[in-house]
Amino acid sequence: MELWLNDRIEGQMCSVRVVNVLHMEKSRYQEIAVVETENYGKALVLNGALQLTEKDEFFYHEMLVHVPMSLHPCPEKVLIIGGGDGGSLREVLKHESVKRAVMVEIDERVVEICKEFFPTVSCGFSDPRAELLYEDGVRFVEETEERFDVVLVDSTDPYDFAEKLFSEEFFRNVYRVLTEDGVCSSQTESPFIMGALIRKVGSYLRSLFKYSAVYWTVVPTYPGGLWTFTLGSKMHDPLSFRSLDGIKTRFYSSEVHKASLAGNISDIVEMKERT
Amino acid sequence: MELWLNDRIEGQMCSVRVVNVLHMEKSRYQEIAVVETENYGKALVLNGALQLTEKDEFFYHEMLVHVPMSLHPCPEKVLIIGGGDGGSLREVLKHESVKRAVMVEIDERVVEICKEFFPTVSCGFSDPRAELLYEDGVRFVEETEERFDVVLVDSTDPYDFAEKLFSEEFFRNVYRVLTEDGVCSSQTESPFIMGALIRKVGSYLRSLFKYSAVYWTVVPTYPGGLWTFTLGSKMHDPLSFRSLDGIKTRFYSSEVHKASLAGNISDIVEMKERT
Repeated sequence: MELWLNDRIEGQMCSVRVVNVLHMEKSRYQEIAVVETENYGKALVLNGALQLTEKDEFFYHEMLVHVPMSLHPCPEKVLIIGGGDGGSLREVLKHESVKRAVMVEIDERVVEICKEFFPTVSCGFSDPRAELLYEDGVRFVEETEERFDVVLVDSTDPYDFAEKLFSEEFFRNVYRVLTEDGVCSSQTESPFIMGALIRKVGSYLRSLFKYSAVYWTVVPTYPGGLWTFTLGSKMHDPLSFRSLDGIKTRFYSSEVHKASLAGNISDIVEMKERT
Repeated sequence: MELWLNDRIEGQMCSVRVVNVLHMEKSRYQEIAVVETENYGKALVLNGALQLTEKDEFFYHEMLVHVPMSLHPCPEKVLIIGGGDGGSLREVLKHESVKRAVMVEIDERVVEICKEFFPTVSCGFSDPRAELLYEDGVRFVEETEERFDVVLVDSTDPYDFAEKLFSEEFFRNVYRVLTEDGVCSSQTESPFIMGALIRKVGSYLRSLFKYSAVYWTVVPTYPGGLWTFTLGSKMHDPLSFRSLDGIKTRFYSSEVHKASLAGNISDIVEMKERT
């Protein structure tokens, strides 16, 4: 028997061969599964969409986190919306300046399962600087009086309960909870499959922030392989960033930072040619 | 009815939704198909493996060509092995220094079909500097007495008649047909799916050339999304390259060149952590 996990977004599908199904349950919010894949180690799957694999998760987590973190001269308070697997939290906590990292995840079961099956991803949960809240991130940024230097939106695909994490009102509240030189970044899907979404989020952030930019990473196990993030920055230019020499990474580097912001991806989203 | 093109390499598959099948034939060497996809325009498919799409082919062709071309101070004679669609030839001919570009493609029907269905890719065939030979590239590099400044190996996956394009003997002959400061580059598949192939080609090139390096691009419609090339250079350091300011590209830039060589990909191939 051959088992394949088919992860489809619109007209494209990424499939990985599955060796074993390790866990499957329905939480209050979604179906949560853990499978063992042939090429990528264990994978976390939410409502049929592959979220991460052990072997390639660093591409996504390092780029979501270190690009915005390196713009801020001294990020002390960081907010993560979503990110229940802990990968983004792990990368945030690599920054010694961070005194407090608040993660607001709607589904406690995702965290519990990742603690059990993905210890190298969820390792930050035990850090005393980390605080976990099991709440709706949309409501959290509406109501909190706290302010953060960096806000990271680490969401699933923009369907169902995650849809509001791509709305104008949500980003207005992200702006509100940021300090006066705060930076935010949000995952915004594949430019070839979801170009309209990237242009929409870009227009929200452009109208709110002094600087906004779309940048990219590769994620070998996501449909379309090329993945985007969109960032907003109140004061700091995305191309003037600190070199993160003391931080261990597998993909992120100053060269990758520059390349991912080099303007190409916006041209691709808009389908223009560079000169 | 939903039609999907499923392109599988080992335990991973990239599938794109197909709107229309425009052409299908069996040539002497392979099955050649052209389909219209939902997200990526027209696609060329050889023996079931997607070779290129109109919308994302530039990632592959620009990176195969401009990284090695920019190492050489003045590439005048260029050899392309394979590359029947013409995309690599188009990029080579953007370099004004090029006086002669020889393309050795085994299957004339691929060229004919690409001229008909992919005019923006095959546009270089009419350039007077281009010479097309319908021959086996393996035999060509064995027998020719010509010498080239740059050799580009633009092959299909390493199966069937393309397998020899990844052999030690083939790369010895590539070295032989290069000028004394020549540079070569070869597509070497996905690091997560075909890591062993990359390490094998890397060991051949390391033993032949003063410099060798693996570098990467994204290709949204290839299985694994992240794609590698392996280069060999007799004299010129891959990180000392000319800025290609006068050349129009959509992905390649000096920043992308540096990032793609930044050492991360070798670490991924070897599965090591960067510090």
